[in-house]
Amino acid sequence: MYEMVNNMKESLDFIEKQQKELSVFGGIGALLGWDQMTYMPKQGAMDRSEHAALISTLSHERVVSDEFWQHIKTLSTSIENLEEKDQIIVNKLEEDVEKARKVPSDFVTRMVKATTISYQKWEEARKKNDFTVFSPHLKEIIELEKEYCGYINLPGPRYNTLLDDYEEGMTVDKLKHEFSHLKKGLIDLLHDIKNSRIYQQEPQKITFNADIQKRITDRFLEKMGLPEDRFRLDESTHPFTTKIGYDDVRITTNYQKENALFSLFSTIHEAGHALYELGLPQHEYKNTVISDSPSLGIHESQSRFWENMIGRSRPFWDYFYSDIAQISPGFSEHSTLDAWYQHVNRVEPSLIRVEADELTYCLHVILRFEIETGLMDESIQVDELPQIWNEHMEEMLGIRPGNDVEGVLQDMHWSGGNIGYFPTYAIGTIYAAQLYKTLTSNNPEIIDQIKQGQFGHITNWLHENIHQHGRKYQAEEIIQNICGEGLNSQVFLHYLKEKYYPLYDL
Amino acid sequence: MYEMVNNMKESLDFIEKQQKELSVFGGIGALLGWDQMTYMPKQGAMDRSEHAALISTLSHERVVSDEFWQHIKTLSTSIENLEEKDQIIVNKLEEDVEKARKVPSDFVTRMVKATTISYQKWEEARKKNDFTVFSPHLKEIIELEKEYCGYINLPGPRYNTLLDDYEEGMTVDKLKHEFSHLKKGLIDLLHDIKNSRIYQQEPQKITFNADIQKRITDRFLEKMGLPEDRFRLDESTHPFTTKIGYDDVRITTNYQKENALFSLFSTIHEAGHALYELGLPQHEYKNTVISDSPSLGIHESQSRFWENMIGRSRPFWDYFYSDIAQISPGFSEHSTLDAWYQHVNRVEPSLIRVEADELTYCLHVILRFEIETGLMDESIQVDELPQIWNEHMEEMLGIRPGNDVEGVLQDMHWSGGNIGYFPTYAIGTIYAAQLYKTLTSNNPEIIDQIKQGQFGHITNWLHENIHQHGRKYQAEEIIQNICGEGLNSQVFLHYLKEKYYPLYDL
Repeated sequence: MYEMVNNMKESLDFIEKQQKELSVFGGIGALLGWDQMTYMPKQGAMDRSEHAALISTLSHERVVSDEFWQHIKTLSTSIENLEEKDQIIVNKLEEDVEKARKVPSDFVTRMVKATTISYQKWEEARKKNDFTVFSPHLKEIIELEKEYCGYINLPGPRYNTLLDDYEEGMTVDKLKHEFSHLKKGLIDLLHDIKNSRIYQQEPQKITFNADIQKRITDRFLEKMGLPEDRFRLDESTHPFTTKIGYDDVRITTNYQKENALFSLFSTIHEAGHALYELGLPQHEYKNTVISDSPSLGIHESQSRFWENMIGRSRPFWDYFYSDIAQISPGFSEHSTLDAWYQHVNRVEPSLIRVEADELTYCLHVILRFEIETGLMDESIQVDELPQIWNEHMEEMLGIRPGNDVEGVLQDMHWSGGNIGYFPTYAIGTIYAAQLYKTLTSNNPEIIDQIKQGQFGHITNWLHENIHQHGRKYQAEEIIQNICGEGLNSQVFLHYLKEKYYPLYDL
Repeated sequence: MYEMVNNMKESLDFIEKQQKELSVFGGIGALLGWDQMTYMPKQGAMDRSEHAALISTLSHERVVSDEFWQHIKTLSTSIENLEEKDQIIVNKLEEDVEKARKVPSDFVTRMVKATTISYQKWEEARKKNDFTVFSPHLKEIIELEKEYCGYINLPGPRYNTLLDDYEEGMTVDKLKHEFSHLKKGLIDLLHDIKNSRIYQQEPQKITFNADIQKRITDRFLEKMGLPEDRFRLDESTHPFTTKIGYDDVRITTNYQKENALFSLFSTIHEAGHALYELGLPQHEYKNTVISDSPSLGIHESQSRFWENMIGRSRPFWDYFYSDIAQISPGFSEHSTLDAWYQHVNRVEPSLIRVEADELTYCLHVILRFEIETGLMDESIQVDELPQIWNEHMEEMLGIRPGNDVEGVLQDMHWSGGNIGYFPTYAIGTIYAAQLYKTLTSNNPEIIDQIKQGQFGHITNWLHENIHQHGRKYQAEEIIQNICGEGLNSQVFLHYLKEKYYPLYDL
C-alpha cells in the first residue's frame, strides 16, 4: 500500500509538472503567433517558422512521451484513490494522450510538411485565381485526413473523427439533422426578407475613419469590462484572440475605412472570446488539461453571443447610439437610432463568409459542411469543388461567385488541414441563441441593464455557467445543464424570426 | 579511418543541430523579453517569468549536456581534419562549453533565485530610498560571484573572471592602466570646461513633443539605412536592442517631453547596435557560435560610434539641422545651427549615468569599475558603498548625490548579478573613438558625405571590418587589425580635446 501511494504521489507530481510545461509552451507558441500577425518585420518570417516549429516539436514530444503515458496509466488504474479534482484531470488526460499516441510521429511530420506547402499553393492559387494550382495539394490533404481517421477510427462516418478534434462528442448524424432544419429555415426567412419592401430600399452608407473606429471600440471594451491590465487590442489583417498567459489575453481587429462596421463587430466578437479565456479556471485547475475550452463551438458561442445577441441588439444601441454620435461629430445629423439599428442588421446575400450578416452566415457554414462530409465519404471529388461550390451558393443564397477567389478558394482552413472546423461556427451561433434565450427568460431585467450599458451581470452569468468549468464537461453537457436541452437550431431560428420580422416589416 | 570520418560527420551534424536549436531558443527568449518591455499587459508578468524560465532551462540543459560535449571533444581531438570554418566553430564552442560545464547546475539555480529576490529588493530599496533593504542581498550576490570565480578561476585577480564573461580576453590590469589615464584626462578636461566662459552661460532649453521626436528619429533611421522589413522601433521605459532573428532586430526608445534629446540620441545609439546585429555573419556561420558579437565592448563601440562620433558631430548637424527645422515649425526662430550644436554637446556633471554627456559618461563607469574591483578583492565592503560612492562622485565630478537613489542604488546591474559589465561601456566608447580616427584618416571624404546625409560608406566600412566577422576574433584583435593598436584611451582623450576645446573656446 505504501509503495502504491508513493508511486501515485510521484505520478501526480509528474503529470502536474508535464501539464504545466505544456501550458507554458502553449503561451510561448501563442506569443510567437501573435507577434507574427501584429508587429513582426516582414523578413522575420523565416526565423519565426523555426521558432514555432521548435516549440511545437518539444510540446508534441512531451504529450506522447512513454514516461508521461506510464504515469497517467498508473493513476488511472487506481483512480478511485484520487481526489475528485485529480480524477477529472486524469480522465481527461488519458483521453487526450491516448488519442495523440495513436498518431505516428512520421504522420505528424508529413502533415506539417504537406500543410506548409499547401498553404503556399493556396495563396498562389488565389493570386492566380486558379483552383488547379491548389487542387493537387488539397487532394493530398484529403488523403492524409483519411489516413488520420484510420488511426483514430471513431465509430460512424470518417468525418466524426475530424469533427471530434474541434467539437468533442459531436457527430455527423446529429449535425446533418440540425443543419438540414436550419438550412431550410434560413432559406425561407431569407426569401421573405428579399421580397420585403425594406430590403428593396437603397441601403445606407456609413463610414468612420480609423481613429473614430478606435475610440468607439475602446468604449465597447471598457463597458464590456475587459480588464486593462490583463488584455490588449492590436491590429492585424484578420482579427483573432490568443491567450499568452492566464492574465494576458490579446485580441486584434482591423480598421477598414470602407467597412466601418467590421472593426466594431469584430472587436465585440473577439472580446467575447477574450472574456472566456480570462475566465477559465485558475485555482485548482490552473495549468492543467481542464483549464481550457471543451470545444470550438462553445468558444464561438461566447463570441457570437456578444457580437450578435448583444452587439446587434436594439437595447445595446439604445445605449451606445448616443456614444457614437458624441465620438463622431456630424454622425447623428445623417442618421437616426432606428436607421442605424436597421443598418447594423442589414441582411444581404454575399459571397464571402467572413463578411456575411447574422442571418446568412450559417448558410456559408452549412455549404462547407456539406462539401467536407462529401469529400470524406467520397461522394464529392476535389476536382468538382469549384462547380459544386458555385451550385450550392446559388441554391442557398441565390448568388454565384464570379471566380474561385470569391468562391472555393476564399478560406485558408483546408490548406492547413483543418477539415471539420467550419461546423463549429454554426454550432457556436446556435448555442449563443440558446444561451441568450435562457439568460433573458430567467433574468428579464437584463434587457434594461443593457439599455443602461451595464454588462456585469451578463459576464458573471457566462462566467458562472460556462467559463469557470473549463473542460470539466463536454460542450453539449454544458448547454444541456444551462438550457435544459442540447444543440437545437430551432431556438436560433426562432430568435432570428423574432428579430428580423419586425426589422423587415414582415 | 572510415570509422573516424563517420564519427566526425555525425558529430558535425550534431553540433550543427544543437547550435541551431540554441540559436532558435535565443530568438524565442529575445521575443519574450521584447514583448515584456513593450506591449505585455501588466498582469502578464507572472506567466512571462514561467515562459522565460522554461526557455532558459531548456537552453542551458543543451549547452552543458554530456552528449554535446562528447561530440565537441570528438571533433577537437582531430581538429586538423576539419575545414577551416569548422575548426573555428569547434574551437570557440569548446571554450564556451568547457566554461559553462565548470559551473554546477545547483549554482545556476541558486544564482537565479538570488538575483530574482535581489532585483525585487533593489526596487524596494529605491522606493524606500534605503540602501539597507538591498545590502544583505548584494552581499549574497557578491559571495555567489566569488563562488563563481572559484569555478572558472582565470589567472590573476578574481575580477578577471567576471570581466571575461562580458569582454573576453580583457584583464583588470589592463583596464586599471587605461582607466587611470582616462580618469585623469577627463577630470582635467572637465575642470577646464567648468572654468570656461561658455559653461557659465545659462544653457538653452529645448523641448519637442513626442510626435515631433518620432518624426525626427524616423528620419535618422531612414538615413542610417535601417531596412524597414528587417527591423522595428517601439517604445519602452529603457531603450534597448534585441535580435529575434537574423532578419528581425528590434530597437526601442522613450519619448520624454522634458528631455527631447533623449529619444534622438538613444535611437541613434540603439540603431548602431541594430546595424551590428543585422550585419552578423549569415552564410557559413549562421546559427553557429561564431555569428555573435565577441564582446559587449565591441557592441557598445558600434552604438557609441553612431551616437557620439556621428550623431553629436558638427557635419551630422550640418545636414540634419534643417530637417529638424522643417519637422518642428518655429524651431529655427529660437535657435541657430551653432547654438544647437553647442546644445547637443553641453557638458554638465550630473548624478545619473544614463543621462550623462559624452565627456562625463566614462567617469561614471570608472567609478563603478573601482568599486566593483574593490568588492571583489575585498578592499571595499558592501556596507561602505553609499559613502564610498558619494566620495568618488565628489572627487571625480564635483557633485554629491542627495540620496542613495541618485547614488549607489541607481543601476539595476548588481541586483542581477552583472558585476564586470560596466567597464564595457567605457571600453566601447574608447574603441568607438579609435574606429572613428582610423575611418576618417583613411577616408577623409567621409566628413563631406556626413554633411550630405550619406552614411552608406560608413555602414559598409563597419560591416566589412567588424560586423561580418562575428566572433571569429576577440574584440581587441579586431581593433588591432583595424586601427593598428589595441585599447587606447589616449585616442579617445585626443578626440574629446579636439572637439570640446573649440566648443568651449579653450
